Amino acid sequence: MDEKKIEELIDKGRSWLRTGYSTESYEGYKTDQELKKKQPPLVKEAMSDAIFDLPKDFAGIEVETDFLKIVNSRSSHRVYTQGKITLKQLSYLLWCTQGVKEIRGKSYATLRTVPCGGARHPFETYMALQGVEGLRDGLYHYLPMSHQIELLKTADDIKDFIGTSLMGQLWACKANIVFYYSIVFYRSEWRYGIRAHRGLMTDAGHISENLYLACTALGLGGCAIGAVDGRYCDAAFRLDGKEESIVYAMPVGTVSKEDKGKEEDFYAFVKQQGL
Amino acid sequence: MDEKKIEELIDKGRSWLRTGYSTESYEGYKTDQELKKKQPPLVKEAMSDAIFDLPKDFAGIEVETDFLKIVNSRSSHRVYTQGKITLKQLSYLLWCTQGVKEIRGKSYATLRTVPCGGARHPFETYMALQGVEGLRDGLYHYLPMSHQIELLKTADDIKDFIGTSLMGQLWACKANIVFYYSIVFYRSEWRYGIRAHRGLMTDAGHISENLYLACTALGLGGCAIGAVDGRYCDAAFRLDGKEESIVYAMPVGTVSKEDKGKEEDFYAFVKQQGL
Repeated sequence: MDEKKIEELIDKGRSWLRTGYSTESYEGYKTDQELKKKQPPLVKEAMSDAIFDLPKDFAGIEVETDFLKIVNSRSSHRVYTQGKITLKQLSYLLWCTQGVKEIRGKSYATLRTVPCGGARHPFETYMALQGVEGLRDGLYHYLPMSHQIELLKTADDIKDFIGTSLMGQLWACKANIVFYYSIVFYRSEWRYGIRAHRGLMTDAGHISENLYLACTALGLGGCAIGAVDGRYCDAAFRLDGKEESIVYAMPVGTVSKEDKGKEEDFYAFVKQQGL
Repeated sequence: MDEKKIEELIDKGRSWLRTGYSTESYEGYKTDQELKKKQPPLVKEAMSDAIFDLPKDFAGIEVETDFLKIVNSRSSHRVYTQGKITLKQLSYLLWCTQGVKEIRGKSYATLRTVPCGGARHPFETYMALQGVEGLRDGLYHYLPMSHQIELLKTADDIKDFIGTSLMGQLWACKANIVFYYSIVFYRSEWRYGIRAHRGLMTDAGHISENLYLACTALGLGGCAIGAVDGRYCDAAFRLDGKEESIVYAMPVGTVSKEDKGKEEDFYAFVKQQGL
């Protein structure tokens, strides 16, 4: 790739992040909400018959409950001990990241444990699970309205899927759970139209920050990943990639303080290069 | 705007969010880090002589400390009572969103209270302050390495600035603090090059989620805003818009439970339209 092409791509990336600089005018443009078109469903319906209730009584589940201590001790974890995660821990993580607290209007919006532009909540949560107590290893989907999960597909060994889906980041293969977040685009486009897209990755960040903090509260560890092969994930979760596509992922697993040294191996280059 | 143009913009937005679908090959491309180029400074130097220390002893400052209760009670607030905010509260909000916990290597990376891709932390925090105890109203900048703030410009009435900067969202003019987040692009580009940009709005989301939660812990309220006039903000904070630009904002103010009805007025259309 030549210098000019690199510069062009850098400019394109920066332009996407900047706001207020565009000279394009969208005067007269109306979103589908403004045009009074029917809004899309708030969540995706169940796709399978294998549905499991998630416990919602979280009393005593947390290793740490103090907010500031959790914020101060949160860190990224890429080394997992392959212990078991309980169903209640999984339930807590799902609740803290996408749990539905309230419905606004008849069915105008869900109010959740994370904020989202216009309360559109266009995200769906998919999971690759292994080593979660009481659940067969496989691919799952969260049903936020009823706080349940459904089994989409069992798997004898899900490690290959995880590795490929995260573009060869093999450390993630030892995670008990990999959360994959899709966006159902029209849920946000109905309200924001052509302006819907820029804010959606920010909303994804709201989810992943709560996931980091909830992991820390439980004594688990994770590390958010942007390098996701969405096309490969879409095929696995049977998403069309056009109306819904996986955009973001986070592996979560059991961790041990004794692995601190192994975690630091990921940054060995800092010392080696004297950075 | 005709249908075709709208469709084109929707496609463009969706394409930006999708991953794994591009057919462009970047084979052979090397980032500046891979090329062993010198990395940029971790933070921006102070620009003013009017620098204020921020207290870091947060014992007893929180109204609520329980993580799950904070997650469950977080909500967006657009109605502010114009009470005073203390310097310690401001300090707590800055700490929870951009506080530096550790330096990795000699000066390779800052480890902060929020996660960020590659620990690049390319954000700078600017503020419009009014009604913060002990501080003159005006525009400020956070110095994360020393946990201080610097006064950039005093202002007799900062409401006009806030209203214009947030594209006429006048409810925000009663906020005690509006946080404006810039990105210093090259800090992330040095490591990720042409792939740096997509993840940065997710990292902005990590910050704003911690800000939401920290506000809730203090009994304050806020509402993140994507509709920011970055060009106008850049001029006010003297950023060039090319290497650094304001991308995101969040007003924060004192709130009262008695204003719940006024908060709901923002959603009056839901009832009116039977949604």
